[in-house]
Amino acid sequence: MMSLTIEARDHASRARAGALHTAHGDVRTPAFVPLATKATVKGLLPVEVAALGYEMVLGNTFHLLLNPGPELIERFGGMGRFMGWEGPIVTDSGGFQVFSMGHGTVAEEIKSRPSRGTRSSAVGWAGRAGSDREGAILAIEEEGVRFRSYVDGRERFLSPEGSMGMQAALGSDLALVFDECTPFHVDREYTARSTERTHRWLERCLRWHAQHGPREQLVYGIVQGGVWEDLRRESAQTIAESGCEGVAIGGSLGAEKAQMYEVVGYATEELMGDHEGKPRHLLGIGEVDDLIKGVELGIDTFDCAMPTRLGRHGTALIPDPENRWRVDLTKGRWRESDEPLLEGCECPTCAGGFSRAYLSYLARAGELTGARLLSTHNLAFLARLMADLRQGILDGELKSVAGAWRAGEFAPKR
Amino acid sequence: MMSLTIEARDHASRARAGALHTAHGDVRTPAFVPLATKATVKGLLPVEVAALGYEMVLGNTFHLLLNPGPELIERFGGMGRFMGWEGPIVTDSGGFQVFSMGHGTVAEEIKSRPSRGTRSSAVGWAGRAGSDREGAILAIEEEGVRFRSYVDGRERFLSPEGSMGMQAALGSDLALVFDECTPFHVDREYTARSTERTHRWLERCLRWHAQHGPREQLVYGIVQGGVWEDLRRESAQTIAESGCEGVAIGGSLGAEKAQMYEVVGYATEELMGDHEGKPRHLLGIGEVDDLIKGVELGIDTFDCAMPTRLGRHGTALIPDPENRWRVDLTKGRWRESDEPLLEGCECPTCAGGFSRAYLSYLARAGELTGARLLSTHNLAFLARLMADLRQGILDGELKSVAGAWRAGEFAPKR
Repeated sequence: MMSLTIEARDHASRARAGALHTAHGDVRTPAFVPLATKATVKGLLPVEVAALGYEMVLGNTFHLLLNPGPELIERFGGMGRFMGWEGPIVTDSGGFQVFSMGHGTVAEEIKSRPSRGTRSSAVGWAGRAGSDREGAILAIEEEGVRFRSYVDGRERFLSPEGSMGMQAALGSDLALVFDECTPFHVDREYTARSTERTHRWLERCLRWHAQHGPREQLVYGIVQGGVWEDLRRESAQTIAESGCEGVAIGGSLGAEKAQMYEVVGYATEELMGDHEGKPRHLLGIGEVDDLIKGVELGIDTFDCAMPTRLGRHGTALIPDPENRWRVDLTKGRWRESDEPLLEGCECPTCAGGFSRAYLSYLARAGELTGARLLSTHNLAFLARLMADLRQGILDGELKSVAGAWRAGEFAPKR
Repeated sequence: MMSLTIEARDHASRARAGALHTAHGDVRTPAFVPLATKATVKGLLPVEVAALGYEMVLGNTFHLLLNPGPELIERFGGMGRFMGWEGPIVTDSGGFQVFSMGHGTVAEEIKSRPSRGTRSSAVGWAGRAGSDREGAILAIEEEGVRFRSYVDGRERFLSPEGSMGMQAALGSDLALVFDECTPFHVDREYTARSTERTHRWLERCLRWHAQHGPREQLVYGIVQGGVWEDLRRESAQTIAESGCEGVAIGGSLGAEKAQMYEVVGYATEELMGDHEGKPRHLLGIGEVDDLIKGVELGIDTFDCAMPTRLGRHGTALIPDPENRWRVDLTKGRWRESDEPLLEGCECPTCAGGFSRAYLSYLARAGELTGARLLSTHNLAFLARLMADLRQGILDGELKSVAGAWRAGEFAPKR
């Protein structure tokens, strides 16, 4: 069976709506995937995440390798059983986190080099979740990467085979291959060599998986190639023609949104035609306009730390394109506001009737309840966006749905 | 109308079951009151607290005075409307928190004076919630107390009238008078003088309330007197004969449980007979054996930071009298345990099927979800205890119910 059933296509873009088939059930696409980086969606219970409409969560090999470790999770029947999540799970390979320790995240690079280009929101969240700078990379070798654990300071080693073994232990439905997440500041030469190594690592991942991996686990290759069109296209081709069931797009996507869309477009263009049946995941992207554009470019699934991370820091998602769909409730102007967070939103936070003043107070006081309420709303907001886009594709009205969201309309009637 | 209806009495003790009538509905007693110190039960939503069976929460004048301030909460229609809690609210006066800055909490005193006596669990939680040592007391005067805010470092002043004004702004159903929480280490002389001042402050509180307080707000006086029998009895008499609708018992209750029970007993004995209709609250006490004994001594309501604070630090309440009804899940022995937290417990945490290993992992990793799951369970556990004790009184079987709980039986069949 194909891992993706395409139910409808948009005629004006590469967008498609479908269903991703996994061992733990289907995921209706296009879909956003909330992070359960450390085997919990921070502050929420699995049953609540599901009630928001989510069908898959993303766990992280790097973090779970260090704590609580693969043996324990395997003994408990995998990450889903361990955390009480009954649906599908995708696991990131740990490549991004390991390399972040050496390279820093793309966002950090951009920030520290203001002369380099526009500070782009796309780039601000282009990093995958949970890079940890407290650890340290010790050596990048063909065999794999040696690093120091941020948990206990011990030296650890992660290789393509090790990552796949870890993901087998986690029992995820979708495993991502171990890649080098090419940094933003490096030149074409470095990017080309790094991308080639990622392709060699892909082969090792697939070989290991064929021999030892869970049969029902789907493997996604990762397209690298930085911002260079030829490298991206070549990488997309290589991944598509490998034995992978799906294709993820990672690495540096550029310094601004326009470039990111171009770069993602190079990859998805290569994935049309014969390779169209392979599901496509865009790593670490979750801003509203990026999700809309990503869907139009033919992406099926997305993950990003943004909605829950922003929620923990007092920022809520609202239909305000002028302000990147965000409102920072810690700002003084919300201190006395009796406005609801978002009129018409049916999430538990908004349905609970909490004022912006109360949410602002909780956020400024660092109260757990505030983090939870805003994370819940933010996830609900993105779930609603994705459900609307999906319905738009099914109804042949993606253009108007996307236009309404881009214009800052909420709950567009169709 | 009397503020308390007594529905049944135990014949072997002073225990009674009844209903406390407030402007926001009845509270079935005996009852434990969860803390919403800063206008939130940390990590939980109001609707969840209610679903656990709780009918009243406790807010704190001191903390809410500093942030977000009385004006804001008043503008929002009081603490209940502000936080979305529809039921009754009791507010502590701020006396304990202000004096903790100068005296330290009883628990801290005991800890730093190991030669003083047995380290008692009773005393460990005898403090009321949320003392903040980052601030500083500047002067204790007859007029009130000057202190430095832990929020912004500004000098603040709290007086009996100021506390009642703040509680009027909070719109609580039950207000506690402003008292000096007498420390443990002081002598009889200091305690006597301090208790007399507390009584003078009581009169000022009542006078202010008669003129300015919300009519439907009940006022509780606070019995002080340290561990001295005559002072405690005299204080209880004074409070009972004042115009207060209810009586709270505060201050230092001794260095060990036996002494605490004696001291509480002095007070409740004075409250029998003519004063029996006044509801009685025991401040800052929440251990399982203390709640049972408190009920037997005739206490109607209790509050304590313990269940939620322990939950945030990885400890769960279980029916294990040998270990103070606690299990510290951060200990290594739970790392791989597939045991449920508590067989037969119907709380959302236990019903969710999370293993001790998973809860242990979350607690050790400092995950929000862990704090929330354990706080929820701990509150559910105490709600169950109180419901059982209440039913025991109504059924004339308190002795066997209390005996079963003391013996570590859970969900005793009756």
